[in-house]
Amino acid sequence: MPSTILSRRDLAFLLYEWLDVTSLTARPRFADHSRETFDAALDTAQRIATDLFATHNKKNDQNEPHVVDGKVVLIPEVQAALDAYCEAGLLAAAQDYEYGGMQLPCAVEKAVSAWCMAANVATSAYLLLTLGNANTLLKTATPRQVERFVKPMLAGEFFGTMCLSEPQAGSSLSDITTRAVPDPVAGPDGERQYRLFGNKMWISGGEHELAGNIVHLVLAKIPDAEGRAIPGVKGISLFIVPKFVLDADGRPGARNDVVLAGLNHKMGNRGTTNCLLNFGEGKYLPDGRAGAIGYLVGQQHMGLANMFHMMNEARIGVGMGATVLGVTGYLHALDYARTRLQGRHPAQKDPAQPQLPIVEHTDVRRMLLAQKAYTEGALALVLYSARLVDEQRTAPDEAARERAGMLLDFLTPITKSWPAQWCLEANSLAIQVHGGYGYTREYNVEQFYRDNRLNAIHEGTHGIHGLDLLGRKVTIQGGALLRAMGEEVLRTVDKAAGTELQAYAEQLSQVWTRILEVTQVLYAAGDMNKTLANASAYLEAVGHTVIAWMWLEQALVATAALANAGTDDERNFYRGKLQACRYFYRWELPTVAPRLALLADLDTTALDMQDEWF
Amino acid sequence: MPSTILSRRDLAFLLYEWLDVTSLTARPRFADHSRETFDAALDTAQRIATDLFATHNKKNDQNEPHVVDGKVVLIPEVQAALDAYCEAGLLAAAQDYEYGGMQLPCAVEKAVSAWCMAANVATSAYLLLTLGNANTLLKTATPRQVERFVKPMLAGEFFGTMCLSEPQAGSSLSDITTRAVPDPVAGPDGERQYRLFGNKMWISGGEHELAGNIVHLVLAKIPDAEGRAIPGVKGISLFIVPKFVLDADGRPGARNDVVLAGLNHKMGNRGTTNCLLNFGEGKYLPDGRAGAIGYLVGQQHMGLANMFHMMNEARIGVGMGATVLGVTGYLHALDYARTRLQGRHPAQKDPAQPQLPIVEHTDVRRMLLAQKAYTEGALALVLYSARLVDEQRTAPDEAARERAGMLLDFLTPITKSWPAQWCLEANSLAIQVHGGYGYTREYNVEQFYRDNRLNAIHEGTHGIHGLDLLGRKVTIQGGALLRAMGEEVLRTVDKAAGTELQAYAEQLSQVWTRILEVTQVLYAAGDMNKTLANASAYLEAVGHTVIAWMWLEQALVATAALANAGTDDERNFYRGKLQACRYFYRWELPTVAPRLALLADLDTTALDMQDEWF
Repeated sequence: MPSTILSRRDLAFLLYEWLDVTSLTARPRFADHSRETFDAALDTAQRIATDLFATHNKKNDQNEPHVVDGKVVLIPEVQAALDAYCEAGLLAAAQDYEYGGMQLPCAVEKAVSAWCMAANVATSAYLLLTLGNANTLLKTATPRQVERFVKPMLAGEFFGTMCLSEPQAGSSLSDITTRAVPDPVAGPDGERQYRLFGNKMWISGGEHELAGNIVHLVLAKIPDAEGRAIPGVKGISLFIVPKFVLDADGRPGARNDVVLAGLNHKMGNRGTTNCLLNFGEGKYLPDGRAGAIGYLVGQQHMGLANMFHMMNEARIGVGMGATVLGVTGYLHALDYARTRLQGRHPAQKDPAQPQLPIVEHTDVRRMLLAQKAYTEGALALVLYSARLVDEQRTAPDEAARERAGMLLDFLTPITKSWPAQWCLEANSLAIQVHGGYGYTREYNVEQFYRDNRLNAIHEGTHGIHGLDLLGRKVTIQGGALLRAMGEEVLRTVDKAAGTELQAYAEQLSQVWTRILEVTQVLYAAGDMNKTLANASAYLEAVGHTVIAWMWLEQALVATAALANAGTDDERNFYRGKLQACRYFYRWELPTVAPRLALLADLDTTALDMQDEWF
Repeated sequence: MPSTILSRRDLAFLLYEWLDVTSLTARPRFADHSRETFDAALDTAQRIATDLFATHNKKNDQNEPHVVDGKVVLIPEVQAALDAYCEAGLLAAAQDYEYGGMQLPCAVEKAVSAWCMAANVATSAYLLLTLGNANTLLKTATPRQVERFVKPMLAGEFFGTMCLSEPQAGSSLSDITTRAVPDPVAGPDGERQYRLFGNKMWISGGEHELAGNIVHLVLAKIPDAEGRAIPGVKGISLFIVPKFVLDADGRPGARNDVVLAGLNHKMGNRGTTNCLLNFGEGKYLPDGRAGAIGYLVGQQHMGLANMFHMMNEARIGVGMGATVLGVTGYLHALDYARTRLQGRHPAQKDPAQPQLPIVEHTDVRRMLLAQKAYTEGALALVLYSARLVDEQRTAPDEAARERAGMLLDFLTPITKSWPAQWCLEANSLAIQVHGGYGYTREYNVEQFYRDNRLNAIHEGTHGIHGLDLLGRKVTIQGGALLRAMGEEVLRTVDKAAGTELQAYAEQLSQVWTRILEVTQVLYAAGDMNKTLANASAYLEAVGHTVIAWMWLEQALVATAALANAGTDDERNFYRGKLQACRYFYRWELPTVAPRLALLADLDTTALDMQDEWF
C-alpha cells in the first residue's frame, strides 16, 4: 500500500524530473552526492517517519506536555523519535561536513525533513527550531559561540529556541521590553556577558528534558547609561541564553535564570511545548547574581537583522509544514474514498445494486482534485524556494546567486502564507471526504486541520506577510524583485507556446500583466494607507498566480514525460498532474480577477470602516 | 459591556425593523403576543444563556461525556442549564398552548433558542434534538403517541433523538439495514408493536441520564413474509423506540433493548454525547423476548417522508447553530481588537509613540468587517427562513402560505449550508484577529471553530445540499421555486431603484439573471451527470447571491432608519449595516462570476478525473 504520509513518486517528480537536483552534484559542495545518496537520505527519513514519528502522532496530541515537579513531561516516544532522527545524521543533513553535516542540497534536505513533519509536526518542531537557531548563529556568531553552542545543536545534544515575542509584543517586535544589562563581571571563562530580565511568550520548545541543554536565541534591548532603551527595532540586540550555563569545557553546568512560567494549551500542535518564559526573575542566581546570563550575538542593536538572516529559510520551513499536513490529509482522504462504500451514480436508479466507493462520486473527486491541486502546487513552490536557496548559495556565477536571492525574497511571504491558507482548506476537504468519521478523533484528519491552523499565525501572520510583499518586496531595489519574478513567469509561458498548454500560458500571462498594472495603480495612490489597505488581498492574488505558474511548470514536464511513459502507472501519474493543472486553471486562477479588480479600484471599504460602526 | 454571545441590537433590527414580526400578532395564533412578550422571551433566554450556558461551555469541551458503570457521565452544569431552559418554558416556546407552549412565532423562537446555541452549542443540542423529534411526531403520530411521548418531551421530562444513519449508511439512507419485525404479541397495554434489530451511528444525545426517558425516532425496514426488505428508500418506516418502555400510565418502566455501543470523540461539540447504539442485540429482553420494542409512526414504508416533514425546520436549526457560532466569535474578536494594543499606523514612524488597539489596523478591520458581513448576513437568512415558516403556517390566505413554502423549500439547502461554510470562515478570522492567543484553549474562539466545523457535515453534507438545490429544488413544480425566488430578489431590486443603493441592486439583478441563464445551460446539457457535476459550486454561487440579497434588504432598512436616527449610537449602528453591505457587494458578490462562468461552460474537470490518476 502506498504511504499516506507523503508520496515518494511526487517527490521524485518534483526533485528529479522538474527541479533537476542531480545537476547540483556538478558543484563542488555537492560533489560527493548523486541521486543514490539523495534517495538514501529520503529512504531513511521515510523509514523513521513511518516507524517512529507517525506512530505517536495521535498519542502526542492526546497526551499533551505537562509539568510535574517543575519539569515538563512528554510521552517517551518523542525522545525516541528525535534520537533516531539525529543519530541518522538527518538534523545536520544540509550542513557543512565540518559540523558533522552531509552537505545535502537545501531542496533535498527540505524533502527529507518533510517526511517527519508530515508524520508528526509536533515532534518535528523541536528539530526545526534547533536547526533555525543553529543556522542563525552560523551567520553571525563568533567561532567560539559556534563551537560551544552550534556544534552540540547540530549533533542533537542541545536543542534550540527562538525567543522573539513577548506578551505585549507579538507582531510588533519593536515593542519588546526584555532588557540585557552588561554584566560588570566577566564569566568564569572570561567571556563578556549580559544579564537578561523580561518575559518571552509563545516559545516553542522553550522547556523540556529532551536534550542536555536548551539554547535560547533571545531578542532584548541593551539600556544606555541612564537605563533607557532605544525605542523601536533599532534598539534590539540578539543574545544566546542557555538553560544551563556552560563550563569552560562546554559542558552544561549551573542552572541559568530562564524559568518556565506556564505552558500554552493550543488547539493543535499539542505535542510541542509552547511556553511563557521568565528571564532573570530571581529563581536562580547564576554566579550568585541576578539576571539570566546571556551572550551577545553579532553587533549590538543589530539583533533583528541578525535574526532575520535566517527568516527566508525558516519561513520555507513553515510553508513546508503547512504543505505536508495538507499532503498527508489528502492521501488519507484518497485512501478513505477508495474504500468507503456509499451511494450510487445519479443515473443508477436501482437501490438493490451495490454501493460504490465514494471516489466514484463527482463531488468527492472534486474535493480530492482540489486537495491534490492545492497540496502538490504548494509542495512545488516550497521545493522551488528551497532550490533557490541552493542557487543563492552555490550557483557558479555571482549574477545567478543574486538573482536567486531576489526571487527568494519575493516568494518568501507567499511560500510561507499560501500553503497555510490553502493546505488548511485541503485539510478541511479531507474531513469533508470522510464525512462524520473525519470529524472524530478516531480518525486522523481532524488533527491535521487543527495542527495546520497555526501556520497562518506564527512566523509572521498572514496580514504581516501581505504588508511584507506589497509594502516591501515589490518596491525594494526599484521593483527589481517583481521584474525578476515576471521574467521567470514569462519564461514558463514561452515554453508552453505552441503546446497543448498554450491556453493556460496565455491565461497566466494575462493575469501577470494585470498584477503589474494593479501594482502600479496601488503605488500611484500617493497614500501608503490606501496603497497598503488591501495588502492581504494582494498577497492572496499574487499567491494564487504563483501557484498557477507552478502548475504550468509541472504540466510542461508531465506533458513531455507522458509521451515517453512506459507503463500505465506512469501515464496515470502524469495524467493526474495534467488534470490537477487543469483544475487550477479552471477553478482557481479565475478567482483572482475579482480580487485584482478590487485592488485596481483602490477599494477603501476596510479603510473607511470606523470602530464605532461595528 | 455589550454581550459577546449575541447582539440584542442586531436581533431587534432583524426581527422588528426588518421582518416586522410584531405584525404577526394580528393573526389569531399570535393574538396574545406583542413586542413586550417577544422581548420578555428574549430577555429570559439571554439571561439563562449568560448565566447557565456560556458559563460551562469551555468546561463541557474539556470534560467530555464518558461512560462509568454503563452510564454516561456529564458535568452537572449541563443538567442545571437544561432544567432552567425547560422550566422557563422556552423549549416549547413555539408550540400550541395545548402542549404547554407559548405559541411564539417561529422567527422569534429561533432568536430565543439562538441565545443558548451561541452560548453553548453542545448543551443546546439536547434541546434541539428533542424539539426536532417532537415536531416530527406532531405531524404524523397518533393522538395516543403524542400524549405518551410528545407531551413529556415538550415538558422537558423526556428527551429525544433522531436515529437515521448507520455505520454503512450515512448520506445513503436507502442502504439502512435496521429491521423492524412485527411483534406477534401486542404490548401489555394492547398496542401493536415491532421488534427492532440493528445499529445506528452518530446518534447525538443517544444516551445520557439527563431526562426520565429517551425517545428515539428510528428509521428501519419492515421485512416481508420471506424476511426480505424492500430495497431503497421505499422500504423505510419510522418508529418510536423509547429507552424505557412506558407503562399503561405513561411512566417509564422496563429497560428497552437500546444499548450504547460506544461514544464517538469529536473535534468539537464535545459536550453532546454522540453514540453508536445497538438495537435488539439481546442485552435486555423487554417483555421477555428479543428485540427493541418500537411503535410505527404514520404509515409503513413512508418513514423517510415522515422524517423529512420536519427537515426544513431542523435545517434552519443547523443554519442557526452555524450562524451564532460565527456571531459569538465575531463579538469576541471585536472585543479583543478594541483592547489589545499592538503596532502603529503605517505612517507613524516614531516607535516611542504608544501602541494602538488593533482595531485601528486596516487588515484587522477587514477581518472584523468580513465576520460582520458573513454572520449578520447569515443571521438575516436564518431568521428570514424562520419567518417563512410562520407565513407557511399562519398567513391568512392559501396562496401566501403556498408561496412561503416554495421559498422555504428553495432556500433550505442554502440556509443549512451557507452559514456552515462562511460562519466557519468567520470563526477562522476570529482566531486570526486574536493572533497566537486565539489558537490557545485559554481563549474561546478556537472552540467555536472546532464546534462549527461539524455543520457542513451533519443534516446532509454540503455536497448533498448542492444536489438537493440543483437536482431537485430548481426543477420541481416546473421551476416554480426558482421563479418565486427570483421575484423576491427583483422586488428588493425595485425597492432600491433611485436610492443610493441602486448600484448594488443592479449588480444583484445582473448576477441573478446570470444564475437563471446558467441554470438553463445546465439543464440543456441533456446528461444528468454533467448537469449535476458541479452542484456544490452552484449551491455556493446561489448562496452568495442570496446573502447579497439579504444585505440589500438590510441596507434598505438601514438607509431609511439612518435618516431618522436620533442618537450617535443609532447612526453608528446603521452605518455599520451599510458598510457591511458595501463589503459584501465589493468583496464577496464579485467572486460569484468565475463560478458561474465555470458552470456555464459545463466544466467537466472533476467529472473527467479518473480514480487511477490520483
